[in-house]
Amino acid sequence: MYRTHTCWELTATQAWTQVTLCGWVNKVRNLWWMTFIDLRDRYGITQITHDPAKSTIELPDVKSEYVVQIVWEVIARPDNMINKDMATGAIEINATEVKVLTKAKLLPFPIVDEPNTSEENRFKYRYLDLRRKKVLDNVLFRSKMLTFTRNWFSDKWFVDVQTPIFTVSSPEWARDYLVPSRINPGQFYALPQAPQQYKQLLMVGGIDKYFQIAPCFRDEDPRADRHSCEFYQIDCEMSFVGQEDVYAVVEWYLNQLIPTLSPHKKITVAFKRLKHREAVDQYGSDKPDLRFGMQLVDMTQDFVDSSFSVFKDTVATGWAIKAMKFENKLLSRKEADELTEQVKKNKAKWLAYICFDPEWLKGSIVKFLSPEEVQIIKAKTGAQDGDTILFVADTYDVVTTSLGRLRTYIRDKYLTIDKDDLAFCRIEDFPLFEMDDTGKLDFCHNPFSIVKWGWEALKNPNKLEIYSEQYDLSCNGYEILSGSIRNHDPELLMEAFKMVGRGEDEIKQKFGAMYEAFQFGPPPHGWFAIGFDRLLMILKDEENIREIYAFPKSGRAQDVMMGAPSYVDQEQLDDLHISLHLPKEK
Amino acid sequence: MYRTHTCWELTATQAWTQVTLCGWVNKVRNLWWMTFIDLRDRYGITQITHDPAKSTIELPDVKSEYVVQIVWEVIARPDNMINKDMATGAIEINATEVKVLTKAKLLPFPIVDEPNTSEENRFKYRYLDLRRKKVLDNVLFRSKMLTFTRNWFSDKWFVDVQTPIFTVSSPEWARDYLVPSRINPGQFYALPQAPQQYKQLLMVGGIDKYFQIAPCFRDEDPRADRHSCEFYQIDCEMSFVGQEDVYAVVEWYLNQLIPTLSPHKKITVAFKRLKHREAVDQYGSDKPDLRFGMQLVDMTQDFVDSSFSVFKDTVATGWAIKAMKFENKLLSRKEADELTEQVKKNKAKWLAYICFDPEWLKGSIVKFLSPEEVQIIKAKTGAQDGDTILFVADTYDVVTTSLGRLRTYIRDKYLTIDKDDLAFCRIEDFPLFEMDDTGKLDFCHNPFSIVKWGWEALKNPNKLEIYSEQYDLSCNGYEILSGSIRNHDPELLMEAFKMVGRGEDEIKQKFGAMYEAFQFGPPPHGWFAIGFDRLLMILKDEENIREIYAFPKSGRAQDVMMGAPSYVDQEQLDDLHISLHLPKEK
Repeated sequence: MYRTHTCWELTATQAWTQVTLCGWVNKVRNLWWMTFIDLRDRYGITQITHDPAKSTIELPDVKSEYVVQIVWEVIARPDNMINKDMATGAIEINATEVKVLTKAKLLPFPIVDEPNTSEENRFKYRYLDLRRKKVLDNVLFRSKMLTFTRNWFSDKWFVDVQTPIFTVSSPEWARDYLVPSRINPGQFYALPQAPQQYKQLLMVGGIDKYFQIAPCFRDEDPRADRHSCEFYQIDCEMSFVGQEDVYAVVEWYLNQLIPTLSPHKKITVAFKRLKHREAVDQYGSDKPDLRFGMQLVDMTQDFVDSSFSVFKDTVATGWAIKAMKFENKLLSRKEADELTEQVKKNKAKWLAYICFDPEWLKGSIVKFLSPEEVQIIKAKTGAQDGDTILFVADTYDVVTTSLGRLRTYIRDKYLTIDKDDLAFCRIEDFPLFEMDDTGKLDFCHNPFSIVKWGWEALKNPNKLEIYSEQYDLSCNGYEILSGSIRNHDPELLMEAFKMVGRGEDEIKQKFGAMYEAFQFGPPPHGWFAIGFDRLLMILKDEENIREIYAFPKSGRAQDVMMGAPSYVDQEQLDDLHISLHLPKEK
Repeated sequence: MYRTHTCWELTATQAWTQVTLCGWVNKVRNLWWMTFIDLRDRYGITQITHDPAKSTIELPDVKSEYVVQIVWEVIARPDNMINKDMATGAIEINATEVKVLTKAKLLPFPIVDEPNTSEENRFKYRYLDLRRKKVLDNVLFRSKMLTFTRNWFSDKWFVDVQTPIFTVSSPEWARDYLVPSRINPGQFYALPQAPQQYKQLLMVGGIDKYFQIAPCFRDEDPRADRHSCEFYQIDCEMSFVGQEDVYAVVEWYLNQLIPTLSPHKKITVAFKRLKHREAVDQYGSDKPDLRFGMQLVDMTQDFVDSSFSVFKDTVATGWAIKAMKFENKLLSRKEADELTEQVKKNKAKWLAYICFDPEWLKGSIVKFLSPEEVQIIKAKTGAQDGDTILFVADTYDVVTTSLGRLRTYIRDKYLTIDKDDLAFCRIEDFPLFEMDDTGKLDFCHNPFSIVKWGWEALKNPNKLEIYSEQYDLSCNGYEILSGSIRNHDPELLMEAFKMVGRGEDEIKQKFGAMYEAFQFGPPPHGWFAIGFDRLLMILKDEENIREIYAFPKSGRAQDVMMGAPSYVDQEQLDDLHISLHLPKEK
């Protein structure tokens, strides 16, 4: 062993013993009468003082980021000399040996809190980036959260099962990553988008509580809250449960995880329940951020006979009008234009607004409204002097989506929200079906969720009002959990598939193992999966999910440090029975 | 929740309360006066008695493997009626409701200890196979071992880091599994054969203790102790350590794991140390099974002037002669032929033997040997009356390999070895280089291991006597661990590469990130990886590694339950810029 202690654990109790430390030179300060070296390791920093007048050794040439080994005698400081600001402030040292283990050439960026360099450069030299406290903290926190989570579920009798990483393609959902098989020419494995079928089959097998921090693989385009290639979810399935049983586990876990690992975070909204329809209606989103108000107020019926023809016509067409209050803010013309740009990005043609300026009403639609209408608006939105009311009049989907995103835009640009607040929202009663533009019915989400109220509900002539026992959990505007109670009745499953025009043959071909398994005594069962990375990102206040991986992929799904992906040898392709088929150069 | 308790936890303390159980019908016995149902779940079996004379309910039709829910009142048995053989033997029941939740059609094989069915059938219906106690036990044990292991390393300040699953191809070692990139046409990710480079880069980044139960992927042909597609290793890397520090961690872990999880296992050989050369010399294997003797005895020098010309000529050619004692066994002619077949499989031309029959010496070479030579053989091998001595005379490699494998063959066929014995053997001082048939020098194992004794050792003119600080651990004849101290000095690394005729350019191209990282203050570091699955297989007495996965691949690397691998749509191939290039039909 090269060292006896780490740079964090030395205290007065080691006084008068000889210790050896190893680490990186964080900083060297040469004063004319002595030298100070800050030695850094994963655990902390220890200051080494070399006073030529007192020391018997000569200090070798040490520079930043050299790896050195230092043997010294610990000397307890007198009480009045203790530096209470440092963990190791109670001691001083008397270096008896200083040895350079390895040298470092000049780093591409300094090991400081805010290195002035690009993300690409940081990722290319990620091994240096990891020496920065913030990056190190994320890695250590991730490890703690892995340990806490696995122990939490193990303690509750959940069985940790490593489901296969090589499985079969299911193009049903997102795009699969494929792995050509050498032994079975022309065939491909797929990496699992999630272990869905395996965990359901575990339930049929009698493993009544399964969990895994499961790697999942979806070939989607990268974005800020979605990591390329692989991501991890806390994946659970339980037998003999209903929706409330599943949520009891989720809430119990989160209520213990957060105070333990992130005690500075405050759960300000504790698992509010909204139906999917309510969430869209009130927040324009199925993952609403409940840390602030700004609910959407439906005013469609208030403008049936409006003197303002645009609103009146909108209502006559069967479209909707919703209002949203921007408190304590009188929009300038320029600001109004900027917000209008935002709703236009989401297909709204226009953003109407009224500013309740104490001196006089302002805003794009003031002159078209009657005083009675202004009163109604004031009453329904609770507008006070100094507030602005924003309106979108369009199809229901455009109104809700554009105002929902505008709400988030205003949050980010204008509001001050405590980043330590956590607001959780359960979204329930997802519709089972949706209708595409051609009027064709299809499953809205996971076809294996059970129909709420079972057979009876399927008879509802309005198919869009049939609900599934599917649920989500959002936190601060991020979707962090999905789940459902499964449809374990093969007849009911078949009926739902038939309703979207898909036959028994297709189920048997695509989901053969599961369909067959359900003939042999499946238990009632349900699941949830928490986005591990996304939850971690929220707890660590990161806005980009890439920051919470030790070795992240770039925005182009590349590992710029290792050079992945890369071209491979022809021989490798031959072994796998494939050849390249590249798009033509333009 | 469908149930209040599991089929294992009911005791007299629940007496007079109403409980609900759910589970599978393990067995139904209809006697003329009452019905007994054994209800099974993951935790145990509870016997339900239905006595029509006492019950107010009618029993529905229940058959094997139906899923039922039973509501009943727990009645404590009088002391003299307690069944001490059952965990739940202190209670009786009074069923107030029995509900069939789901039915099961006739199973393809019964849920019994030894179902008379093929492995393929068991794997196809793995979800039913999981209901068998032995398979369930392996799944539960795996989960426990995962939890124990992770906590053990976390408690010792190892950081659990999930290294990337999508990385770059390194055809240097085994064959890679490749994943075509959609976003980067013509390029491929490779799944990691092991996280080697990432964990070394973590050390450069200052994470001084890393561990992970890491999925590893090697496209090798399946065999009994190697699972297709993916397998798991307990993967560690540590900074500022030497070989003994690494072993201290390994031994500490195993010495706590085994008594905790498998207390019936006995460590009969506790980490014996052998140099690689000694292991091959004495056991004909670099992963010797030390649970029994039968060391190889070198007799080359004893036959320099033998009257037996075959032996004499062998020695004259520079080849070797080794003997192995088969205790308490006088080989019949048929048995000798059978053992001869075995050594021939490993390229030996012939197996010579002498039986020390108390009546007279027997065996294929008796008539050629002088009485003095027989005495020497007896003295050197310690042969007693009733023993047989086996000889192979051939090249050193053939002698050691063929006798080493014969030793294992005899173990399996003739010896009785307590399967609960565990014999661990550290193998050290692996040669750094080996020579191929053309006399070309190449790395023997991992080129990133440090040269033992450093620069000085590289000057040795006999390159085959340069050793690396690489090590293995074997247990009962299985290799369960590999590791090494790394070569973190870029100059020394380069020199070793040059000695096998590989230049700086190649290192920079193939291992660019690591080569560069070593310029920025790498710490001295070392690693080990324990074959998690293989260790589990030993602790659970399984001879085939497939048995210790919840969902194993078959011998042809197929998931017969899910039908993986499979053919995929042309559209999927187009997205990935590849096309099939199949071998021609013969």
